[in-house]
Amino acid sequence: MAQTAAPKGLFVTFEGIDGSGKSTQARLLAEALQAEGQEVILTREPGGSAGAEEIRALVLQGDKDRWSAETELLLFTAARRDHLERVINPATERGATVICDRFADSTRMYQGLSRGDLRTKVDTLHDLMIGREPDLTILVDMPPEVGLSRALGRQGAEERFESMGVELQQKMRDGFLALAAEFPDRFRVVNGDQPIEAVRADIRAHYDEARS
Amino acid sequence: MAQTAAPKGLFVTFEGIDGSGKSTQARLLAEALQAEGQEVILTREPGGSAGAEEIRALVLQGDKDRWSAETELLLFTAARRDHLERVINPATERGATVICDRFADSTRMYQGLSRGDLRTKVDTLHDLMIGREPDLTILVDMPPEVGLSRALGRQGAEERFESMGVELQQKMRDGFLALAAEFPDRFRVVNGDQPIEAVRADIRAHYDEARS
Repeated sequence: MAQTAAPKGLFVTFEGIDGSGKSTQARLLAEALQAEGQEVILTREPGGSAGAEEIRALVLQGDKDRWSAETELLLFTAARRDHLERVINPATERGATVICDRFADSTRMYQGLSRGDLRTKVDTLHDLMIGREPDLTILVDMPPEVGLSRALGRQGAEERFESMGVELQQKMRDGFLALAAEFPDRFRVVNGDQPIEAVRADIRAHYDEARS
Repeated sequence: MAQTAAPKGLFVTFEGIDGSGKSTQARLLAEALQAEGQEVILTREPGGSAGAEEIRALVLQGDKDRWSAETELLLFTAARRDHLERVINPATERGATVICDRFADSTRMYQGLSRGDLRTKVDTLHDLMIGREPDLTILVDMPPEVGLSRALGRQGAEERFESMGVELQQKMRDGFLALAAEFPDRFRVVNGDQPIEAVRADIRAHYDEARS
């Protein structure tokens, strides 16, 4: 008799602007599921596997114009492929839940902001070399003024203020909301401008719905 | 009045198995053209630009299974994109001749050997992110026994003997000849099993034909 394979684990991603609380919420969901006895892999991009972290370091070091948008896209796709093969796919295959802080939607959003003409390349490259979307994407949405004041409250965040002004954060927020409208099956938009416990409860409801 | 743009320089690549003499011949052609007053950029892959050399180092360090074939393909394509943008395209735009020791045909040949199922991905990725073929590709063809004995004659080559046996070299040779048949417009097959001066003269004739 054929053995029954373990049910595949859910692949959940968190997206949102800086200061939206997405990383905190990703950790809270992971901790809650672990406390209930699930195997949970909490990971993040760019990076998330040994090879991907090395590629991340190569991309981020050096000056701003060191790599063109196209070369950077190829390097991040290489990192994502490694992360997917070495961490995400094996985990969900054995039934573990994967919770990832940023994934391909962040690439789509950033490219849309800086080089909108690259979106077709981003999508073709994703279909060709990644070929997997999350089962559930939580967008922690928040007005940029609130996100910025939170980000500034974090140690060392002051120097990022100028490059992360309200206008840019608003464009990022709009970019994420446009992606949520483009992929309504897997995106769930959560209001991040609530007490942390209320945000947590909203996310948990979406997770339970996706799992059922 | 509009200025007349300088004619674009030729982009010439050399391919062939180890010991075929392709690197020597690439250098001889570069030196001859320079002696005639041309600006010539002699370069090689993988690598060829500062960023591409760093990616090359990242790919080649570590153990054999460190990267999957797909991740390696993305990393080499990132390196090629950087090489193309920073070195090859600007040079031919200003009228210089670019002579490159190995290019995309080496990727096609190696993937055909180890993971033939990846060929469609290789081609799609090339069309999407590289999008340029050489004007002329010189394949320095040679029986693998001759190439191997030459390679072994080079200092430090002994230890490569086992991994570079005759059978593997024959497959590489066949792979290159298949590519020459696939892209007859730009490929020219030169018999490398002749005195170095005769090989040089054959290559020069193909170069002159391509330039006219």
